[in-house]
Amino acid sequence: MRRGILVGPVLPNWREPCEQVEPPGGLERLNLIGRRIAPVTLTARILSQGDELTTGATQDTNAGWLARFLWERGAWVLGIASAPDDLEAISRLYTEAARDCDLFVSTGGLGPTDDDYSAEAAAKTAGVGLREDADAARRVRAWFRRMNRPMPECNLKQARFPEGAEILENPVGTAPGFAMTIGRARAFFFPGVPRELYVMAEKHLAPWLVARGARPSLRRRFHCCGVGESTLQERLEGLRAPEGIRIGYKTWMPFNSVVLYGDPGVAAAADAMAGLGAEVRNRLGEDCFGEDEATLASVVGGLLQARGWTVGVAESCTAGMAAAMLTEVPGSSAWVRGGVVAYASGLKTGLLGVPEALLAAHGAVSEEVARAMAEGARRTAGADAGIGITGIAGPDGGTPEKPVGMVCFGLATPHETLARTVRYGDRGRALVRTLAAATALDWLRRRLAGGG
Amino acid sequence: MRRGILVGPVLPNWREPCEQVEPPGGLERLNLIGRRIAPVTLTARILSQGDELTTGATQDTNAGWLARFLWERGAWVLGIASAPDDLEAISRLYTEAARDCDLFVSTGGLGPTDDDYSAEAAAKTAGVGLREDADAARRVRAWFRRMNRPMPECNLKQARFPEGAEILENPVGTAPGFAMTIGRARAFFFPGVPRELYVMAEKHLAPWLVARGARPSLRRRFHCCGVGESTLQERLEGLRAPEGIRIGYKTWMPFNSVVLYGDPGVAAAADAMAGLGAEVRNRLGEDCFGEDEATLASVVGGLLQARGWTVGVAESCTAGMAAAMLTEVPGSSAWVRGGVVAYASGLKTGLLGVPEALLAAHGAVSEEVARAMAEGARRTAGADAGIGITGIAGPDGGTPEKPVGMVCFGLATPHETLARTVRYGDRGRALVRTLAAATALDWLRRRLAGGG
Repeated sequence: MRRGILVGPVLPNWREPCEQVEPPGGLERLNLIGRRIAPVTLTARILSQGDELTTGATQDTNAGWLARFLWERGAWVLGIASAPDDLEAISRLYTEAARDCDLFVSTGGLGPTDDDYSAEAAAKTAGVGLREDADAARRVRAWFRRMNRPMPECNLKQARFPEGAEILENPVGTAPGFAMTIGRARAFFFPGVPRELYVMAEKHLAPWLVARGARPSLRRRFHCCGVGESTLQERLEGLRAPEGIRIGYKTWMPFNSVVLYGDPGVAAAADAMAGLGAEVRNRLGEDCFGEDEATLASVVGGLLQARGWTVGVAESCTAGMAAAMLTEVPGSSAWVRGGVVAYASGLKTGLLGVPEALLAAHGAVSEEVARAMAEGARRTAGADAGIGITGIAGPDGGTPEKPVGMVCFGLATPHETLARTVRYGDRGRALVRTLAAATALDWLRRRLAGGG
Repeated sequence: MRRGILVGPVLPNWREPCEQVEPPGGLERLNLIGRRIAPVTLTARILSQGDELTTGATQDTNAGWLARFLWERGAWVLGIASAPDDLEAISRLYTEAARDCDLFVSTGGLGPTDDDYSAEAAAKTAGVGLREDADAARRVRAWFRRMNRPMPECNLKQARFPEGAEILENPVGTAPGFAMTIGRARAFFFPGVPRELYVMAEKHLAPWLVARGARPSLRRRFHCCGVGESTLQERLEGLRAPEGIRIGYKTWMPFNSVVLYGDPGVAAAADAMAGLGAEVRNRLGEDCFGEDEATLASVVGGLLQARGWTVGVAESCTAGMAAAMLTEVPGSSAWVRGGVVAYASGLKTGLLGVPEALLAAHGAVSEEVARAMAEGARRTAGADAGIGITGIAGPDGGTPEKPVGMVCFGLATPHETLARTVRYGDRGRALVRTLAAATALDWLRRRLAGGG
């Protein structure tokens, strides 16, 4: 537990170095500050199995997904564990979980081959036998018929379950799951295929949690772009997290978010969340580009549409990333015209009309050229707003005056043309490019929101 | 363990549905087939702690990274486990690991706050006290001085270690790690910040493994684009994996790889790997775009440079993704000219010179238009090769004749202009766009490699 519940006194200065790290695969990182919120309704464990996990061939993304699934629905996870494909190791995990929690969820090991041990280990742990389920066997056979493939006999293994188990339909795959009571725990066995797990947890686990009286956690998120975690903390300095509320800071490059978690066990938490949320929004001001499910591109799109505007993009170092980010939004063709990837200088002059003299005088990476690129993007794409991006992504090409990580931006509207420079530092080609594309979109958002 | 060591008889037909699933965050998935390769030199466990893990706020990517790190260096991981910020729960993990393995690695819990329990739990498990290390305390103070920040007193907690612990330098952050012997295990305690973990594992753990005689695993990878896992399996059908070799299939959208793992404990494995690798390469033929560390863009770049060619891109539905992918390669400005993001029809006609009549007759998503876009990309970008991409990414805009997921490609060189259509199916806007960008690059690669 962190000391106190004020954000100020527990400012984790020591965390500074981790701010600049992009998690592998772009996964989210979250620093939680304030009282732990532990729903007391139910306790749970998350178990998985497979040599692919213990040899690092596959990241166990299921565990993280399930942890959030359970936490959001009011269960407190006592532990997460993976074992290799080994009957003894898996049985040991089940035995421990059956002893100290209300439910456990096991993923994987439901397949037809000899290293799929879930049913066997569950039966062994519960001290019961295995029996073939006629319905399940019929469904497995039907699946192979539908796919027009011969069925290897071992696939019938997927139809054998511990005696007394409740068989759980798998609407999106061949391997059904099952649930049974072992020790003091209700145990759920789901496939390891993520898509199948997601569907089955919603279908079979969520209703069970509700029936057992679990109270969902509360969550509000406030998203920023280009504002570091330590800056966010300063902005919220002295802000009191009321009883039952926890404040977190999440980094998901190139974005940062303030996250409020509310304990559903505290009666006043929902009202307190609303009040604290309003204060957070107030303090972040225009740095907050959106809340909860909003994305930067969707917010930009909404602002453009509100004015009846379109946008065009001229990109050098990002080479299409800003355009790609804008068009992640379905229906973005209503407000994205397109643009030019001007990687070679010839395209800056030829397509975008950047004067040769400007390039010669200031260099391709300069505010002057960024400005001309933005105006060229507007004109060339026939758009109301134009964005220009030119910079040095690295690893080579830097000079003392223009180091790796320096990016110049231009922004052109019917009213004005602006330019600015950001130095991201030599943080890796991929990260510099991602940050630059997001910065360009966020700048456009700020101008549109500010009435510029 | 899978049955047998032939790829043919254990074809996992039952896995079919999982092929089309993109793991959250684009992480790798790997299906292993053949005998388990378990190096017997050392056994290990991977432990981590933090409410952020057990509430699903953060994915424990450290565990997967360490699992691969240990496996590749010859240690067999017996289990992976996470506990919340709870002294009892963490001590229990340490106690169990100290009992049954040669080493364990704990990540996280080295910070200055009250919920950082690694040192305390390690001391408790080993039955020793904590003492402050003068050197470490000095380093923490110096870090704050360098950052020009006042040091909260609690940060000195990072300088307290179990008695007898070996302190491990952290070259990239404030919290040092430590190592000590607990029970039969050598225990390593590293920070949870990924970048710090990576550096410290290389610096402190890797040499220890070598000194303890661990033999590194062998690995070869053969990468393909647009070839499904079941097709790869068919291509390798009947191929014998010799003793000590395991064949895996890895999906990392939009790519698939055949992966050979070699058991360093089998004397002939290295030779057998070379022989099997040659056969795999032979069977995959031109479908294999590269091996090991090669990326599709780097291979395309190499082929272009070998001819002294440059490339230009005209993108509609991918809106810059193909250009962005090409320019992921450092130094790609030598062979990428740039291109046009022609999201609006006006840019297809205006910038790329696609005739209005062609658009009217065939529609924007057609091979005729893709061909004209590719030629326009060549001409506009002043490049030797031109790529055109136009399609329906969805979720809307599909028709019975041109459904969501249908993408047309054009490819123009000094010698020819080609067009083709791929139907990816309605698999989500993001995935269709990613697949389309990769398909375009792979098609260019095949033409360049084939002498077209």
